[in-house]
Amino acid sequence: MRRNEFEVNDPEAIERFLAECDYGVLSIISDGVPYGVAVNFAFGDGMFYFHGALEGKKAQAISTHANCSFTAIKPYAYIPSYLSDTRSACPATQFYASVVANGAVVRIDESAQKAFGLNALMQKMQPEGGYEAIDMANPIYTKMLEKTAVYAIKPETITFKVKTGQNLPKERKASLIEKLQARGEDETIQQMKEHL
Amino acid sequence: MRRNEFEVNDPEAIERFLAECDYGVLSIISDGVPYGVAVNFAFGDGMFYFHGALEGKKAQAISTHANCSFTAIKPYAYIPSYLSDTRSACPATQFYASVVANGAVVRIDESAQKAFGLNALMQKMQPEGGYEAIDMANPIYTKMLEKTAVYAIKPETITFKVKTGQNLPKERKASLIEKLQARGEDETIQQMKEHL
Repeated sequence: MRRNEFEVNDPEAIERFLAECDYGVLSIISDGVPYGVAVNFAFGDGMFYFHGALEGKKAQAISTHANCSFTAIKPYAYIPSYLSDTRSACPATQFYASVVANGAVVRIDESAQKAFGLNALMQKMQPEGGYEAIDMANPIYTKMLEKTAVYAIKPETITFKVKTGQNLPKERKASLIEKLQARGEDETIQQMKEHL
Repeated sequence: MRRNEFEVNDPEAIERFLAECDYGVLSIISDGVPYGVAVNFAFGDGMFYFHGALEGKKAQAISTHANCSFTAIKPYAYIPSYLSDTRSACPATQFYASVVANGAVVRIDESAQKAFGLNALMQKMQPEGGYEAIDMANPIYTKMLEKTAVYAIKPETITFKVKTGQNLPKERKASLIEKLQARGEDETIQQMKEHL
């Protein structure tokens, strides 16, 4: 069994994390082999929403195999080996947080739900507004809604990992925080203090 | 057939891009379904190198199905819809570059090649040095090399896409560059000028 010391089981922390990630990688099966493609996404009501073309490699793969994995990443500081006062490369590591969701991805064909997914995406990517809400009844959107594919992933499992030195002995962690402070790695330090 | 106006067929440009991406998402098959996991990587001699544990979900999946996809992303500017002087959300888009490689991932068991992969990774992540080169003959590394799994992906195909408005009419592109200049999106503008 693998250690799970980096797993964080907090639905609100997962939502906050996903709101900060503009894109993720959708892993699907295309022609029998894995295919990973990046998409902007919004997470709402427990579903991941993204959009694409009605045809093409991604559309074809999704329509053939619904099983997917969705991976969103936030890299924090790279920790150089020498911060551990050694000439060995071994302590070198990358701090990061990641969400990996597994479930089924389906194309949404119902106009109101398509509009819901696209509005969720717009609200996330363009929170300052500056556009009319997407609605089938609005003639500027009728054609676009017909021509755009909207997909939803219903996750069966969501694994949130935060790797920010939780496994380090207390003194080494304190010393690392001091060194990262000198390097201006404030976001990483904040995560280290949040995830003990 | 999908348009390929965003594809860039330039091996040197691909190498430069991959050198700038610290991590990518490895898409593999685990227990019969897709699994996407982020890894730091180095690209050298036409192979992608990364490391991991000898056991666990990733190791198990790789030993069962060698087929994989490897996806590295660089997001450029998000282009708000209103930069196109409309109240429609439709022109909203994300500029980005991505490499998607497909091929077989294998665990490397030969010490010298393991050391090669790990040194490539260290040179990329820690170009400033500060460590002794990884070598089986160096006693500080003997145990680590035995306990660490090093993987290589031999890509059969590599697709490099750069989406920075190549499809825009000349005048709209010039107007967009002006607006992005005002927003300080210098890296995106540079990419727009490089990929016409």
